Amino acid sequence: MVLFVNGKFCKNPKLAKADDFFASGLNIPGNTNNRLGISAIVADVNKIPGLNTQGLSLVRLDYAPLGENPPHTHPRATEILALAEGTLYVGFVSSDEDGNRLFAKLLKPGNVYVFPFGLLHFQFNPNRTAPAVAFSALSSQSGGTITIAKSVFGSKPAINPDVLTKAFHLDRKTVELLLLKNA
Amino acid sequence: MVLFVNGKFCKNPKLAKADDFFASGLNIPGNTNNRLGISAIVADVNKIPGLNTQGLSLVRLDYAPLGENPPHTHPRATEILALAEGTLYVGFVSSDEDGNRLFAKLLKPGNVYVFPFGLLHFQFNPNRTAPAVAFSALSSQSGGTITIAKSVFGSKPAINPDVLTKAFHLDRKTVELLLLKNA
Amino acid sequence: MVLFVNGKFCKNPKLAKADDFFASGLNIPGNTNNRLGISAIVADVNKIPGLNTQGLSLVRLDYAPLGENPPHTHPRATEILALAEGTLYVGFVSSDEDGNRLFAKLLKPGNVYVFPFGLLHFQFNPNRTAPAVAFSALSSQSGGTITIAKSVFGSKPAINPDVLTKAFHLDRKTVELLLLKNA
Amino acid sequence: MVLFVNGKFCKNPKLAKADDFFASGLNIPGNTNNRLGISAIVADVNKIPGLNTQGLSLVRLDYAPLGENPPHTHPRATEILALAEGTLYVGFVSSDEDGNRLFAKLLKPGNVYVFPFGLLHFQFNPNRTAPAVAFSALSSQSGGTITIAKSVFGSKPAINPDVLTKAFHLDRKTVELLLLKNA
Amino acid sequence: MVLFVNGKFCKNPKLAKADDFFASGLNIPGNTNNRLGISAIVADVNKIPGLNTQGLSLVRLDYAPLGENPPHTHPRATEILALAEGTLYVGFVSSDEDGNRLFAKLLKPGNVYVFPFGLLHFQFNPNRTAPAVAFSALSSQSGGTITIAKSVFGSKPAINPDVLTKAFHLDRKTVELLLLKNA
Amino acid sequence: MVLFVNGKFCKNPKLAKADDFFASGLNIPGNTNNRLGISAIVADVNKIPGLNTQGLSLVRLDYAPLGENPPHTHPRATEILALAEGTLYVGFVSSDEDGNRLFAKLLKPGNVYVFPFGLLHFQFNPNRTAPAVAFSALSSQSGGTITIAKSVFGSKPAINPDVLTKAFHLDRKTVELLLLKNA
Repeated sequence: MVLFVNGKFCKNPKLAKADDFFASGLNIPGNTNNRLGISAIVADVNKIPGLNTQGLSLVRLDYAPLGENPPHTHPRATEILALAEGTLYVGFVSSDEDGNRLFAKLLKPGNVYVFPFGLLHFQFNPNRTAPAVAFSALSSQSGGTITIAKSVFGSKPAINPDVLTKAFHLDRKTVELLLLKNA
Repeated sequence: MVLFVNGKFCKNPKLAKADDFFASGLNIPGNTNNRLGISAIVADVNKIPGLNTQGLSLVRLDYAPLGENPPHTHPRATEILALAEGTLYVGFVSSDEDGNRLFAKLLKPGNVYVFPFGLLHFQFNPNRTAPAVAFSALSSQSGGTITIAKSVFGSKPAINPDVLTKAFHLDRKTVELLLLKNA
Repeated sequence: MVLFVNGKFCKNPKLAKADDFFASGLNIPGNTNNRLGISAIVADVNKIPGLNTQGLSLVRLDYAPLGENPPHTHPRATEILALAEGTLYVGFVSSDEDGNRLFAKLLKPGNVYVFPFGLLHFQFNPNRTAPAVAFSALSSQSGGTITIAKSVFGSKPAINPDVLTKAFHLDRKTVELLLLKNA
Repeated sequence: MVLFVNGKFCKNPKLAKADDFFASGLNIPGNTNNRLGISAIVADVNKIPGLNTQGLSLVRLDYAPLGENPPHTHPRATEILALAEGTLYVGFVSSDEDGNRLFAKLLKPGNVYVFPFGLLHFQFNPNRTAPAVAFSALSSQSGGTITIAKSVFGSKPAINPDVLTKAFHLDRKTVELLLLKNA
Repeated sequence: MVLFVNGKFCKNPKLAKADDFFASGLNIPGNTNNRLGISAIVADVNKIPGLNTQGLSLVRLDYAPLGENPPHTHPRATEILALAEGTLYVGFVSSDEDGNRLFAKLLKPGNVYVFPFGLLHFQFNPNRTAPAVAFSALSSQSGGTITIAKSVFGSKPAINPDVLTKAFHLDRKTVELLLLKNA
Repeated sequence: MVLFVNGKFCKNPKLAKADDFFASGLNIPGNTNNRLGISAIVADVNKIPGLNTQGLSLVRLDYAPLGENPPHTHPRATEILALAEGTLYVGFVSSDEDGNRLFAKLLKPGNVYVFPFGLLHFQFNPNRTAPAVAFSALSSQSGGTITIAKSVFGSKPAINPDVLTKAFHLDRKTVELLLLKNA
């Protein structure tokens, strides 16, 4: 029998020890040698059991030159990001009710930006030669990530192309290209 | 001075009357004479003041033949939908952590489907001649809607095309097409 | 060993499938051939495992001519009701602190009414020949129902008649009648 | 303009003083010279402004010989009661889903009993000569009270007698008696 | 396998009985024959299984003459206290952001005082000959207690004395005395 | 009239702009030229209006050689800390119920540590020559800080010395010293 409480096992508190509240490795640059030029090193409840029920997690984000964290949402968290190195063009888009307004900003080291609960957002390193490094906190032990390109055009199995054709106001060929590229 | 509590004014409870808990019009088909063939008639806190702090709202959804409610998320709500008339192909996609799996189903009248909190989902009427009608409840007085096509490709102002080109693994020309179509 | 999380087993998310988010049968009129002339077909977490932790459920309500959903409360939910067919006299009563005011309304198809969290409410079909049909959403995966007649006069075992005699300002004989009728 | 936050004004925290967290008078027996033989002296947010947002309140309950706190619910609170003097027959009834089971107990001084969130409950002093005194805490700054007799048979205006006749399985005359007695 | 839900086992609701909501003994003075002259008799979820998920617990506090409940916090609860007998000097201190202001009051029988969520507070019986008795409710099924003297100077193992020396602006010898006395 | 919602004014969402979600300066070392050798630069709702209702804030912590963030609690937040530079001895103490156990660890750059909700904790730079820098996230828009030395021995006005003498098991003279030093 497998049982999940908040998706995680609960430990007998009497058996908890310091290492249950500890993680390491956020000083080591992540591998950004991928198409998007992005790396996320996550310190959430999956790595730190003591975060269970504590509503918080941490992420180190590395961006290659021109690397990006593509448009995504966190279904269960607000995010606050602090830029440590480089420059970063960041933004979120408000909901349909607010007119899908873009709230964007070019960040320099020491700048902080908030991505409100559940809204679509992204980060992009506009520098052609220098990497960027940021640290983000999320208001959940495991906020989840919905990367739009993956969720819309890369789901398994794929969403019916007719749905996507109409949704994005495109011809069938372009949608098939999107599906192919993001599979 | 304008003050917002949960985004809404609170009324002196002593002055509340029956009409503050009432709305009408969910029996009248919405106008689906638009590109997507979709209409949403919303009964939320903006129409029913008595819903303030009550965590609930209702929507009537009309779908033209081949009409659709395109991929979107609700940043602050779970949704449960009941199909009243027609057929409806519905689905949601789990988060990146779960492998972006598509949970889809073809609904017939009287069928009910759940779109879990914050996840990307859609509804599509696959019938070429008959409309469809559904009723949805959301677990928020005002759950918000993030239509992906609008939020990613139709924000005001537009997200930097370089960001979108990389995010969707596309050439610049296709992205410009997407931006143009969804503006 | 039997373990309950929010009163329900939690499933390993990796094993979830589309049918865990699905239910059927809300298009079929319920059987109202009972003393009250009422039927409730519930789509809650007991029928849809995927509703666990999602804070929402749905109900189809059928009313025979002169049928009613008698005065009751939901200890863990707000309710929003939409009338689909017929007419319905609905109401809720505010708490003692507000003077037990009745907020009532005669609903026609397409009308929507809210029963605020935890308050006593009812629905009654005043039509002598036509049935009525409504759909309700509740802000809980399992909001619970406390039907007053059953809870006060039909508990097992019965509440001490002395308590009820005094509470309702009645003679012993009438209370015994109430106990007998609602047992 | 009148504005309510959680139904109460919020004070500038800098202006708070000790008296905002203080109340007096719970040592003085309440007046039980009424039909039910009950008195409730409440220390909630209406008396103690500092309770705002703190989710807690306190009540002193005095019971005349054969006095009772009649069947009622608290729409927004759990209650825990400690008997200080006398004897008290207490009970709550589980919801319809659990079969409306009565959980009752005869309390002696120093006994504690819990009335779970939103469930119907009562207290009755079975002693013909001695009063009883209890103290209760509620898990809300203002939990609300729905006294069943008042809410069902004493609302203003009255609920349609047809509704009540059917709900309680009674003849019209008995319902009119109930309405008259509890008006 | 041992599993904890909110730190407690959940029982199959169908097996619940009246005794799961019951505790006794709050009428018996606790033993205050200790250095602080204090006794706390707790009625929380560890004693009353039915409190699980109900967000409430109760405590009887006995104070010897000059006895005290030393400065402490409850990490998960607000507290409301009613003085039953004697006199009690009570107080809480606001946070650093509010200037660590002391909100203190001398209570007489029947007086009520609130200790807001998470703030440091204490109670002291200033009477040299008479005991005092109070009852407190906490807004948690198990609010936890952090007695400052124990947590800072009596932890197991001890906090590095250098940390404490600097924190309290003291010489090493005084800190060692504090550690020794509170071990 | 001054009104506070969660202690902060709510802005009309339509008027929000990117700068409402932005702060700067977390790249600049804080001034640790004080007795404790500590600096905290806070990015919370007081600096970033867009954090209102978002349940999150960020802090940069600078520690001089042998500097420390003295024992304290956050009444409304969990904290997760990442060490950026130097070494840091960190720890928290569990509640009385768990035996006041110390969970301590010596952190190196890239290490992460969690301080659970409401528990007493501290950080100390044991290095005699090198500073340390850390970043912490808190699960509240404004978690509050209760520095124990200030709250117990530095409140305004002071807590009655008799209370402290007994609480810390000390002679009057030592308590007066503590009060003097921490005033």
